[in-house]
Order: sequence, then C-alpha cells, then structure tokens
Amino acid sequence: MPADNNLDLVIRNADVVTASDRFRCDIGVRGGRIVALGHDLPPAASEIDATGLLALPGGVDGHCHLDQPMPDGMRMADDFFTGTRAAACGGTTTVIPFAAQEKGASLKAAVDDYHRRADGRAVIDYAFHLIVADPTPAVLQDELPSLIRQGYSSFKVYMTYDDLKLSDREMLSVLDVARQNNALVMVHAENADCISWLTDKLVGQGRIAPRFHALARPDAVEREATHRAITFAELVDVPILIVHVSGKEAIEQIRWAQGRGMKILAETCPQYLYLTAEDMGMGGDDGYEGAKCVCSPPPRDPENQAAVWRALTNGVFSVFSSDHAPFNYDDPEGKKLGGTAQPFDHIPNGVPGIETRLPLLFDGVARGKLSLHQFVELTSYRPAKIYGLYPRKGTIAVGADADIVLWDPTRKVRIANANLHHAVDYTPYEGIEVTGWPMTTFSRGELIVRNGEYLEPAAGRGKFLEAGQPEI
Amino acid sequence: MPADNNLDLVIRNADVVTASDRFRCDIGVRGGRIVALGHDLPPAASEIDATGLLALPGGVDGHCHLDQPMPDGMRMADDFFTGTRAAACGGTTTVIPFAAQEKGASLKAAVDDYHRRADGRAVIDYAFHLIVADPTPAVLQDELPSLIRQGYSSFKVYMTYDDLKLSDREMLSVLDVARQNNALVMVHAENADCISWLTDKLVGQGRIAPRFHALARPDAVEREATHRAITFAELVDVPILIVHVSGKEAIEQIRWAQGRGMKILAETCPQYLYLTAEDMGMGGDDGYEGAKCVCSPPPRDPENQAAVWRALTNGVFSVFSSDHAPFNYDDPEGKKLGGTAQPFDHIPNGVPGIETRLPLLFDGVARGKLSLHQFVELTSYRPAKIYGLYPRKGTIAVGADADIVLWDPTRKVRIANANLHHAVDYTPYEGIEVTGWPMTTFSRGELIVRNGEYLEPAAGRGKFLEAGQPEI
Amino acid sequence: MPADNNLDLVIRNADVVTASDRFRCDIGVRGGRIVALGHDLPPAASEIDATGLLALPGGVDGHCHLDQPMPDGMRMADDFFTGTRAAACGGTTTVIPFAAQEKGASLKAAVDDYHRRADGRAVIDYAFHLIVADPTPAVLQDELPSLIRQGYSSFKVYMTYDDLKLSDREMLSVLDVARQNNALVMVHAENADCISWLTDKLVGQGRIAPRFHALARPDAVEREATHRAITFAELVDVPILIVHVSGKEAIEQIRWAQGRGMKILAETCPQYLYLTAEDMGMGGDDGYEGAKCVCSPPPRDPENQAAVWRALTNGVFSVFSSDHAPFNYDDPEGKKLGGTAQPFDHIPNGVPGIETRLPLLFDGVARGKLSLHQFVELTSYRPAKIYGLYPRKGTIAVGADADIVLWDPTRKVRIANANLHHAVDYTPYEGIEVTGWPMTTFSRGELIVRNGEYLEPAAGRGKFLEAGQPEI
Amino acid sequence: MPADNNLDLVIRNADVVTASDRFRCDIGVRGGRIVALGHDLPPAASEIDATGLLALPGGVDGHCHLDQPMPDGMRMADDFFTGTRAAACGGTTTVIPFAAQEKGASLKAAVDDYHRRADGRAVIDYAFHLIVADPTPAVLQDELPSLIRQGYSSFKVYMTYDDLKLSDREMLSVLDVARQNNALVMVHAENADCISWLTDKLVGQGRIAPRFHALARPDAVEREATHRAITFAELVDVPILIVHVSGKEAIEQIRWAQGRGMKILAETCPQYLYLTAEDMGMGGDDGYEGAKCVCSPPPRDPENQAAVWRALTNGVFSVFSSDHAPFNYDDPEGKKLGGTAQPFDHIPNGVPGIETRLPLLFDGVARGKLSLHQFVELTSYRPAKIYGLYPRKGTIAVGADADIVLWDPTRKVRIANANLHHAVDYTPYEGIEVTGWPMTTFSRGELIVRNGEYLEPAAGRGKFLEAGQPEI
Repeated sequence: MPADNNLDLVIRNADVVTASDRFRCDIGVRGGRIVALGHDLPPAASEIDATGLLALPGGVDGHCHLDQPMPDGMRMADDFFTGTRAAACGGTTTVIPFAAQEKGASLKAAVDDYHRRADGRAVIDYAFHLIVADPTPAVLQDELPSLIRQGYSSFKVYMTYDDLKLSDREMLSVLDVARQNNALVMVHAENADCISWLTDKLVGQGRIAPRFHALARPDAVEREATHRAITFAELVDVPILIVHVSGKEAIEQIRWAQGRGMKILAETCPQYLYLTAEDMGMGGDDGYEGAKCVCSPPPRDPENQAAVWRALTNGVFSVFSSDHAPFNYDDPEGKKLGGTAQPFDHIPNGVPGIETRLPLLFDGVARGKLSLHQFVELTSYRPAKIYGLYPRKGTIAVGADADIVLWDPTRKVRIANANLHHAVDYTPYEGIEVTGWPMTTFSRGELIVRNGEYLEPAAGRGKFLEAGQPEI
Repeated sequence: MPADNNLDLVIRNADVVTASDRFRCDIGVRGGRIVALGHDLPPAASEIDATGLLALPGGVDGHCHLDQPMPDGMRMADDFFTGTRAAACGGTTTVIPFAAQEKGASLKAAVDDYHRRADGRAVIDYAFHLIVADPTPAVLQDELPSLIRQGYSSFKVYMTYDDLKLSDREMLSVLDVARQNNALVMVHAENADCISWLTDKLVGQGRIAPRFHALARPDAVEREATHRAITFAELVDVPILIVHVSGKEAIEQIRWAQGRGMKILAETCPQYLYLTAEDMGMGGDDGYEGAKCVCSPPPRDPENQAAVWRALTNGVFSVFSSDHAPFNYDDPEGKKLGGTAQPFDHIPNGVPGIETRLPLLFDGVARGKLSLHQFVELTSYRPAKIYGLYPRKGTIAVGADADIVLWDPTRKVRIANANLHHAVDYTPYEGIEVTGWPMTTFSRGELIVRNGEYLEPAAGRGKFLEAGQPEI
Repeated sequence: MPADNNLDLVIRNADVVTASDRFRCDIGVRGGRIVALGHDLPPAASEIDATGLLALPGGVDGHCHLDQPMPDGMRMADDFFTGTRAAACGGTTTVIPFAAQEKGASLKAAVDDYHRRADGRAVIDYAFHLIVADPTPAVLQDELPSLIRQGYSSFKVYMTYDDLKLSDREMLSVLDVARQNNALVMVHAENADCISWLTDKLVGQGRIAPRFHALARPDAVEREATHRAITFAELVDVPILIVHVSGKEAIEQIRWAQGRGMKILAETCPQYLYLTAEDMGMGGDDGYEGAKCVCSPPPRDPENQAAVWRALTNGVFSVFSSDHAPFNYDDPEGKKLGGTAQPFDHIPNGVPGIETRLPLLFDGVARGKLSLHQFVELTSYRPAKIYGLYPRKGTIAVGADADIVLWDPTRKVRIANANLHHAVDYTPYEGIEVTGWPMTTFSRGELIVRNGEYLEPAAGRGKFLEAGQPEI
Repeated sequence: MPADNNLDLVIRNADVVTASDRFRCDIGVRGGRIVALGHDLPPAASEIDATGLLALPGGVDGHCHLDQPMPDGMRMADDFFTGTRAAACGGTTTVIPFAAQEKGASLKAAVDDYHRRADGRAVIDYAFHLIVADPTPAVLQDELPSLIRQGYSSFKVYMTYDDLKLSDREMLSVLDVARQNNALVMVHAENADCISWLTDKLVGQGRIAPRFHALARPDAVEREATHRAITFAELVDVPILIVHVSGKEAIEQIRWAQGRGMKILAETCPQYLYLTAEDMGMGGDDGYEGAKCVCSPPPRDPENQAAVWRALTNGVFSVFSSDHAPFNYDDPEGKKLGGTAQPFDHIPNGVPGIETRLPLLFDGVARGKLSLHQFVELTSYRPAKIYGLYPRKGTIAVGADADIVLWDPTRKVRIANANLHHAVDYTPYEGIEVTGWPMTTFSRGELIVRNGEYLEPAAGRGKFLEAGQPEI
C-alpha cells in the first residue's frame, strides 16, 4: 500500500457479515470508502476496535415517509433531520422516502419540493422514490423517463386511497414506462372499491372505533389487488415490487407468481411481525388507543405473523422496510386529527418504526428464525440492489461506502419511546424486549453513533444518492 | 289410476336418463306434465314407442341471446321464433335469454320490451335473465328486488364492454342485492382496462385482423377478473356464476375457490371445446373468415380445450350453455358491420350455437369423456335448478313438465349450416361429425320435432316461466 | 295397469328424494321392486301413508366390519344378525362388509367362510368386498379374476397393519388386476413404517396411553400414503378409492389428483366429523376411556373436521360409510384385550357406528351443511353405483328394489347406546343430539322397522347381492 | 501490512464476484489463503493480471463419482487423478465424491478404502460424502456419529437400486441420526417398486432399447419418492437434500414443502438442462447410442428443462452438481457391459460431466437466465456451506482458501470430448457451444491451469477436507 495512501480509519478485528459471507479482518477506509479488507492493516488516523461485535452493512430503509406533504390538515412528525437521526440510531445509514406527486401537479415539482425539505437536514444519505398519482401523458412520456435518467429509478403507485389511486389502465401505463426505462414500480395493493364498500357498511352501522379498520380491509382485499397487480406485470412483462405485505393470502399469490418464473418482488415490515388486529382493539376494545396501530394493510393475527416470518426465510420477500409513517398520537395534526378521536376511516394511516426496524428483525436472528445473512440481505443488501444504490450501499466490500454498523448480538433492550430519537410521541412496540442492538454507526466512514450515543453530526451531512438501474 | 284421469300421452319403453338415474319404463303425461312412470301404463290418447332411444329431459339453455337490442347498427339474426325453433330442433326445450338494461334506462323497461319481443313468437318455454348495466339506487333498492319477486331471479353483470361494464363498487352492490333477495349473479369476467390497453397497442401497430382479438384478451385477463369476481363474492358472502369460462387459468381460480368451500359456480360453452385461436386465423391468416369465430373470451388452444373437458367431468362446471350470439357473417348488421371487414375490436362478438350445443357435448358422451348423467346435469338439470326452474324443468319425474327429448345415441351427423334451423348464415362447427342426435322433442307433452322433422307448432305456444329461488 | 298386475304395496303421498330429484307421488311396489311412481296409484294389499315424511333410498353402508375373523384373541361383537339389525334401524338397507384373506390362505376360502357367517343371519341385503392380504400369483391370475366375475368386484388393500399390508409392488399388481377386470380397489392409506417408527419412539418413552395413538399416526403419515396410492393409480391407469379419509392433508392430495383429471374416489366416516383426538384423551387424559375412540386413521381436530365437512359438499368425497368395527369396550376380546388396559398400539382399532351413520350425517342437512340430494348421493346412490349394486340399490326409481326409508326430518334424538341395536357396549357418540331420524324401513318392500320399532323380520331374509361392474 | 508478512501472490485488478457481491480490487494471498483484498496491494513474489476476466470462487462439485467400487463387472473410467484433473480444467477446485458402504460391510471400511483411492492422486481438494447402504444398529449408533465428528457430515441414501436402497423405516432411522448429530442426508428419490414393476412390463414386451429407460422411470415415480422423503423429513424434523431433480413434478413437491417452511434442499445437474429423453432415442430410435445418456432419473423433455431452469432462479435449488458418473461407452466395463449392448435395465447408469458442469451453467448467465451471483451460489458457495466446507471454500474473502478461477465471460467454446481431461470416451454434450469459459485456476494459491492449459501439478497435492457442520 503506497505511503501516500494512508488510511483515514481502520476498524480492527471486525467480524464482518455480508449478505453471503462472514469473515474476520480489519476494515480500511479512505475518503469515505472501504479500500482494504485484510489482516494487520497499517495504522490509520482513526482506529476503533470491534472485537466482540458484528460489523454489518448499514441498513437501507427502502420504504419510509419523512416530511411528506399531507392533505386534510395532517402533518408528519418527522422531518429529514429527526427521521434520519432516528434511523442512524437504529443502525440504518440510507433512507429512501417518497417524493409524492399531487394530482394536477407535475412530478418534477414534487421532486424539487422534496429536495428542499431534505437539503441541510439529513444526517445520513438518502435517495427518493417517486409517487405517481397523476400519470398524464406528459408525466408518462417526458417527466418519468427524464427523472429515471436523473437518478429516480423507482416509483410507487397506489391501488387505494382516493387522492393517490390509479385506475387499472393507468397502472398498465406506468408499468410500461418502467419496462421501457428499466425502472421499478412499487405497488400498494389493496382494492379501493372493496374498502370503500366495506367502510360504508361499517360506518352505516355505527362501527367506527379504530378496530373496525381491520374489518374494512380484510386480507381478501389485499389478496385481490395483489393478484391484479401481478397480472398487470405479466401483461406488461416487467418486474414489480409489492410493498408492505401483511399475511398469507397475499403471500400465496406472490409465491404462485414466483413459481411461474415471474419477477414479483415483495416487501414486509415490522408491524406484520409484531402487531395484530388485537392491537387496534379487535378483541372488542372500542377505545382510541388502537389508533396508534392503524396502518394499511392492517396487522392481522398470529397465524399471519407466522406466515410472514416464514416468507422472510424462504425467499418470498426481498425487502424488509419500516414504512415509517410518523403521526403523533396526541396531536390535532396526527392520530387525533382536528383534536379529537376520529372514525376509523379518518385516522391518519401508518405507524412509526424507522429506528426499531432493524432490532425487531434482528431479534428473529437471535431466536433462530433467520440467519445473519438473511438479515443483511433483507435490510440492506437487497434494498440497495433493487433500488439502484449498490455497490455504494448494501455491503462491506472494497469500493463500497463505509456505511458500517457494529452490532452487539447479545444485548437485550426493552423498547421504550423515551429512548427513541424520532419526533413521534409513541411507538407501537413499547415494552417489547429484543436481543441484539446496533451500538455504533459509521456513515461514509464518519462516526455518528458511538456505543448507542448519538454524536450530533452536522445536519445536512447526508447526501442525495442518484439511484442507478434496479438490479432485480 | 282413476278412470277419469286418462293419460294424454304415453311414451312406451323409454330408456329414461336423469341427472342421477337410468330406468326403463313407460312415461305417462297428462295436462303437459308427467303424472306416472311405470311398467305397463294404461293406453293413452297418444302413444309413441321409444324403443332404442334414450329419453332425456329437454335441454335448458341457460345462456343465449335472442333479438337483443344492440348498439351501433348491429342486429341479431335470430328472434324468439327462429331461435327457439333452432333450439327445439337441437333438443332444447327451455331457453333463458337476456333482458338487457340500457345505461340511463330502467330495468323494468328492458323487461317489458323483451316480453314484447318474445310474445307470440317462442315455440318453447323461456325465462329471462336480466342484464344490470346501470345499477342506480333505484335499480338496486326497488327494481331489482321487485323483479326478483316477479320471477326474474338471475342477472348478469359485465366486467368488460364499455356500454355494459360495472365498476368494482357497482359489482359489490349488485351482489349484495342478490344476497339479500336470494338471486344469482352471473359474471362476464374479463378485465376491461387490460383489454383496452392491449387493443390500443395492437391497433397502434396495425394489427387489426380478426386473429388479434385473441392477443387482446389473453387468458391472464380472464383469470384476473375471475379472481376479482370471486373476491367480491367472498366479501359479500354470496354465490356467483362465472359464465363462458375459456380455459385452464380461470378454471384454476374457480377450483381454488371451490376448494375453500365457496359457492362459485361456472359455465362453459361449445366454442371452448371445439374452437381455438387458430380458427380466428391465429396461425397467421389475416383473412376475414376468422371473424366468424370471434367471441369473448376468445377460444384458446388444444391444451385449454383439454382443461375444459376435464373440468366438465370433475365438478368445476355446473352449466354448459351455448352463449348463442347470432350475427350473420355476410351482413352489414353482422360481422361485416357497415358492410365491410372490421378491425378486430369492432367485430360483433359471439358465435351461433343454440341448435348444436347439445350434440357437440353429447359427442363427448359417445367418446367416453363424460357420462350420460353428467350430460343431463350440465345441459338441463343444473341450469334448471340454478335458475329457479326446477322441478318443472330439468328432469323426468312425476310432476315435472313433459319436456322430453328422444335421442339416438349412435346416429352420426355431420354438422352443416344448411341443415340448421337458426337464421344465421353460418355455423362455426361446419363439417364436424358428431355421434348422437336428438330425434324427437316434446314440449309440455306436445310433439314439436319428430324424427328430426320440425313440426311447425304454433309460434307463441312457448310460455314465459317465472323463475323461483336459485338452488345452488 | 293390467288387473293381474296388482300392487303388493303402495306408499302414499311420498316426498321422494333421490340423488338428484325430489317429487311427490305414490310409490307402487310389486315383487319387492318399485313398479310405478305416480299420482293416485290404485289400491294395494298393503298401504302406508308417508305424509310429512321424506322417502329416501335405503342407505348403502359401503364399509363395515361384521363377524370378521380376527387375530390375537380379538372378536367382533356384531355378527351378521346384530349388525344388520342395527343397520336397518339406522336407515340402512344394504351392507358391504369384508371377506378377508389370511396370509397363506386363499381368497376363495375367505369368501366361502364369510358366506357361512352371513347365511341365515342377515336381515337386510349384503354384498362382499374382498380384502387381498396375500396377492400370490394364484390369487392375481386366477382367484381374483374369477371372483370378480362371480360378483365380488371390489377389494381392499392395506398400506399398514402387519398382517394385512402389501408392498408397493404388490399394490401395483393388485391394481393391475383391477384394471384388467374392471374391478375397484379400496385403499387404506397410512405409511406402515412411519407408524412403527413413531410407535417405537413413543412406547420407548413410556407414552402408551390411548391418546398417543394420535401421535403415532399424524396426518403426514396418511397424506404420504395417499399420495403414494394416487401415484400407483396413475401408473397403472385405474381408478381407486381412498377409504376413511380423516382430514385436510389427505384431502388436499385427493383434490389435487382429481383436478388433474384422475379418477381418485374417496370416502369418509362419521368419526372424522364428530370425534377429535381430544376424545382419545389428547388434552392430557391418560385414562383408558379414550380407547373407545381409537381407530385408524385417528380423529384429528376441529379444523380437520371442518375440512371434511367441506369436502363432503364440494365433490371430493363420493362415499360416506360407517367403517363400523364393533369391539366391546369392557371385554377381554375387545378394547380391554386379555382383560386389561392395553398400550395404545395393542388396542383393537375401530369404532362402532353402523346405526348412527345416517342420522349423524343427516344432522348436517338439518344444519344446512349439505343438501338432501348430497346426503342421498353420499350414503346410498354413489356407494351403490361404485360397488356395482345400482340400479337395484341406491335410488327410488321404477325397477329398483323397494329399499325405502321414511325419515322424519325434524325429529330430535339424543344418541344413547341403550337405544341402539348393535351388540357393542358403547357408542362414541353417546349424548350427541341430532335432528332427523329414520322412522320406517322397507327392505325389498317388506316393512322391517316401523316408527322406530324393529319388527323382528326373519334372520336370513337378507340376500347376498352379486356386485356388477363398478360405475365410477 | 508488516514487512515480514510479504504476500506470496497478488492477483491484480480482479473483477471479483461472490454469491452476493461484485467488486474490483487486488487479491493478496499468503500461505494458500486470501489475506487481503484492496486497492494497490504491495508487490508479491508472484503476480498475475486479471484485467478483463472475472475472478470467481473455484467450483465445489457437491455430487460426483470417482473410482467408486462397482458391482457386476462395472468400472468407473475416472479415478481421483483424472477426475480431479478434469474438474480443475472445468473451473472446479473442490470435489465431494462418495465413500460407499457395501451391504454387510462397515461404513468405516468404505471410508478407509476410499482414502486409499484418493491418496496421492487428487490434484485439488476433496471431501467425502458417505453412502449408507446398510444401516445396522452398529452403523446408526456408533459408526455414523463417529464419522460425522471426524469430518464426514453428509451422507446419501437411496430409495431405489437393489444393492443400495433403504426401506422407509431405515430412511427414518438414518434421518434421525442426522438430526441428532447435525449431519445432512442426501436422498436419491425414485420409487424402487414402481421402477421394477414398469421395467418387468417393458422387458416382458421386448422393449429393451435404451430409450425405454425413460418409460421405466416416469416423473411420477420421482415425484412420489420426493413426496415420501419430504414426509420423512417432516416426521423426523430434519433438513434433507433431494439430489438430481429432473423436472417439474418433483420440483412442485419440493416447492410445496419449502412454502410450508420446511428445510428441503434440492440439487439439479446439467443433464436436466441440456438432455431430453430424445437423446436416449425416445423418438423411436432403438440404436444403442442412447445408452450414453442413460442416467437416473432420466432426462425428460423441453418443458421440464424449462422448469428446471426456472427453479434454478427462484430459489428451489440450492446446488448445481455434475453427478459425474464416468462409464466408457465402448467398454465391457462400461455402457457395453460384458462387451455388448445391454437391455436398458442393465446399462450402467450415469453420464460424465465433471469438466463441463460449470461452462454449461455459465452459458445460462450469458443468455440472461440467471445472474453471476446465482451462478456462484449454486456451484460453489451453497455446496460449500451445505457440506460444511465454508468459509475455506465457496467464496473470495479474507481468510478463505485461495481457490480462485479466472473466467472469460465472452469466450465461445464448442464442447468436444477430444478437448476434455477426463478419462471417459465420450461426452453427452458433444458439439454444444457455450459462452464463457474458465481460463485459469488457482488451488490454494497454486496456479494449476493457466489460460486453459493444464499445468500438471503434483498428483496428490489435493488435500482431504474435514467437513464441519452443514449450514443450511
């Protein structure tokens, strides 16, 4: 190693785990990138001893919402600063939130606005997914192809929510743009009409407590939309990714398509492993606490949780994300919209989870449900590949960004909102004890969390990442 | 048997076959009904010897179109007279065509109009299905419940065709009416948006020959809509019947639902047993003859034909209908709409088949593909039950209408349009040789076809049948 | 009707239900056969008014064990007299028990012996299945083909039980004989080696209470053998019938085969609808009462019960039998073999049920789980067809034997062994209340049970039935 | 890097591909192991420039037969010298052939004998699988546990072949030993009795040409045994690996089990991607050339080939092996056993393929069927993990053996036996052109093949590898 190529940082005695490999060595970093892996690397300006810890690639949260403009008086509690701070403390070094088009507006406007919200605030790196809510000819023919080339290579479409949902025909058109431009479409798969029909029935019967959210969106509604989205992908001949899959019925459809050789990717989230409809009061509790766990699709039951765990290990899922949607509970811009308890169909949807995502899944490693490699694959490697950020992100290898997290695999932690770093006033996982915790986080070689202590790096140090072509 | 109860008709030495039984006896008829089955029945005013023939319940064609008002200058070639004449000659004694609501008009108006078209013309009995094309609140809350009570207990909805298709929400509403009023919904399951997207692509490429009809409606499009319709039935908790199922992908969905215990009924038609996309020119023929076989869903390929035959025998299908849609080929109101060859998406959809339906399936009996009982079940018994006409129709039993057809199970007939009794200028089955033919037809005890000769009974002798509650 | 053809019996105002039809008429009987169905039949020597009752074809119990020679000091409590008496009181008019070959002996010897046991004792008609336990070349080439021609057209083979089980190769050979001679093979499908391996483990751990019977024969063991038997049928290209299917795993295999177009028939029994492993003490009870419910395959759990009910209505099952295996509980030749409680693997297998079979299923009709026609199909029509006894048995039609049972569909009865007519000292269904009861039984026109009272017809009046070719 | 730690070898500018990662760097080797990956590594005694080539982990052939003692006068053409030479030239650096127990002999004797055959002859490293043909109590309780501890942690069992096959009970016992000792059982899944029954039929009809081998072993026979083996694994609760899966029916079973969360691993081989029954003369050719392609299970048809390709990419398969079984064609100890053409059931089973395995699969990478990472995973990484050789073998990472192969991904090569390095007189792949070829092979840092030239390293330089615990 030439003398003028001194290392900025060496992490000594690292027990490195990647999506496939595990090896013990020193990690040499220069200019924010990993430049050497080896035994007995030469001294560096900064050194840290990782003995007894696992060195994992920093998490890539492929699905989270930060400071996203909201309709109807709602406001997200986390912006790019508090959101990325929490992410970093939870072992995540890259986030990919959404630049959401408004109906009637351009996509470009949404992207520009979203950059303004991120600039000077993020403490870790970030890319943007787009949300295509109004696929006009201009959007399809000009804006999308142009944005894809500029580093926005994934976009989400909705099959539900009045302000976002696309018609089947629009879905096909968007998928076709993705096929022609090598982009990836993420699909929120629930049947809007079924939900509105069921909702009207329930509301008509006065069944408006949070728990009825689960009855308004039964698994058949998600299964149907999943099957339909798969059909669109089949007709257009393009991969898609089904986001936040909640249980066995949708899993069955996805696995069926995969068995036929189709490239149907899928994502799930902590809420489908740890929450059930009971947490919304399904057992009969009509209190409003259940609103804390209202998200879509709704959490289901233990049998579905087991199916989701199983599908994490047998290849159905590629991505494990947070779907962090930060609404305060006790907030007139949050779950208590306008200042009071809301009927279930007016509760802002979503649960916070950007900081707890990784520990909640890691606990499955500790319990023998999945391997360390599967953990890395689902939380970092595959999202980086799929969203065009690899090889900068997603691994510990020569040439990659030095986004490295040192985990204590045996540390037991009881989750408490008081200890979290987001700006939300609750966590749905309060009181759950997990084994394994991310102690120390490097972002591009910079130490930003040390032994669980957030080091207050400069807001705005996080950089925008231009996403390349998805690798499916 | 009291002396004053003389029989009007005795069919001697009948080899009777019903959906489950086969027995040899005399059949005694009085007042148009079967009043006795037995050995050595007393003499009657009219007698016929059925030795050597099978006595089967007259066919019930649960899906055919006669004199249905058409948009865009199209006209059906068969009215109630020619249509029922052809049916009778083909062994069918009951038809159930469609009273079709127009968007913006009332259902009642459609029913009234349709009665006017049938009155004085039908030579066999008939009931009406309704087509619900515009499920306004008035239709859902008043008209439909009222019509169901008046004997119109089945209605069809479309998931495709611009002038007919319902939204998902409308589908749910119609199904809910069916559930509350014990009616049955028939579903044309193809995804409209997928078809229009594919059609626009094909037309944009100048691929407009009849054969491209098959590419515009691939099996995935039918499968998707089938899955979706099943989901609606599941949410509403009501049986449905999927009409004219064309092949294995849709069959797989239906069988999956049946395996879960759902009451998903299904129908197929002769075109899916005897035609393929080749008959539309799929092999590469861009001539217009293929228009003769254009119907929706389109005929597919031999592997799908085999799947349909298989599903006829293992319980997937309950009903085998003609979907008779009588458009002349060489007619400016028919396949050559406006006087010329049309791009595939403007060809009037449908094939004629009201007279050939039963012989084409019976040939499967002769070839050992299905049993005589399955033949009766699919063509007469089950449609009569499902559409609320049993026990008047669908069997040979004491109390039933004497709608009886004597079949020669060994007669070989080569199908030729010249010998058929409909008013259409072609049959897609020209030249096919079948084994087994309906020789003699009784409608309510009246001999209307004898040894293949149509006896010209009075037009208008056919009566309207008020349908009762469906028996699923 | 000629004057010299006077009727022996007329059942007036019968509400007749067959596998497919329901009609109201008088039933005329002469010479033990039905000769007329009609309104206002002439007077007969004997008349009975059936107003308010259903007239159903007498039950055909396609699987029961009576006076079957047993090894190891076991003895069946019911012989042909007590067994057929109980059957008749339960609405069954035909039984088909088993002539069981012993290893080393001939099939013919088993048949001759079994006729001696039946002669002069049966009060209703009976046919014999054969049990092929030793398929020597002589058996395969001579005895079986000869016996098939003589009216023994169905035979059972075992994949478990040391004294009965066949090797895979022997199974194939027996199936091949069935294919060449148009006979039907019934298969007891459980994997012998798996059972013995599990049993040895359990016994080695001292887990010998009756409830461990369930753990020694888990559903995977039945599923595997079912799949294997289906494979044999596929290779030989012959139908088979899987007997006493206990739950969803085996059902899934059968339904899969049926979906591929294979003729795989299946049977289930009351014990899989009404009993669970709890009844053997599965919850933790090590008492010996559980021995009363020990049968193979073992009853499972409520989820499996639901799957069996579902498969009764969607066509998976063709036959509902009792598998009556009459061992006294408190008997040194019965469940307490040798006079004491036995380890689970030494308990005589089987439960009694010949009299309760029909009421237990009929209760499902009363609860809306299946239709009257499905009831007739599963309990009478299809077993008669499949086992070559149709059209003498299995229906109410001109020409059929007058085996008719009048049911009161609304009568509520609490099952009590004290009221049953078998010779077994218990019923596993003690205390269960059912709706619907067979009140009056005719066997070939002879009244043998009237209003629930057994009329003590002559022992030996039941006749042996030569079975014809199975109709699958 | 300390001065006294000079590198033995540096591979410069390597385009490294592992199971998950791809990065460009220099690879530093010392003492046969990789000690550094980095940019601008210091000079070494030996250097090679890999510019323009891919650096892949050397292949691990997890299933091959070398110098295995054979019954009946058969002899394998390859011993450890010629076999490992061919492997090295084909990009493989580790082989795992089989130490096969003879019935009546001990396992230990087989292992000792097999070491004698390998010693002094292998040119690359090797481990041994065991074949358990006679699981006596001594084998189960003593030999197997002891051998597992000594580095033989995988063993194969057969469900067919008279001299090898185990009973179901023996299978269960062997699986139980694997569970208790953390070993892995490989299963040859075909139903022996079905094969012998079909074979006897065919031979009895004089149908003895090589092509009838395919009819004697239809896919149902493989599917059945696969289902059965899965059931055993389920009952014992232990992973298994199904070897040489040939097509869609077995794949469907495996995928079903994987979907339930079971650890059922599977392997396939080049013959199921490139050969069909046509290559045995299935089209009607009764010549003996077809004997060259006789192996078990037999190659099937293009539809099954497609299913195997698909299952390589969607996670069904973990391992791609050669199942190299080297019998000369024109040899009285080979395919022409005893000097003449043999009836199909006497042809030595197997095809050679140790050298062509990797190029044949790599061609699938070139054609876009699978990714480079999937290639590495199936051919090197996963076999190394599963068979307890990781992290020494299966990757390019710090600490791993320097078993590295430099591939030219664009080189086109037409396979010709004349250019291969095994001792067999034919290859079934003669004339097939592939894209991509392994040019240069390092084994523990030693250059043994350079630019396609075999460098004649010392026979015996290959070392025996003690296998650790399988990582599933």
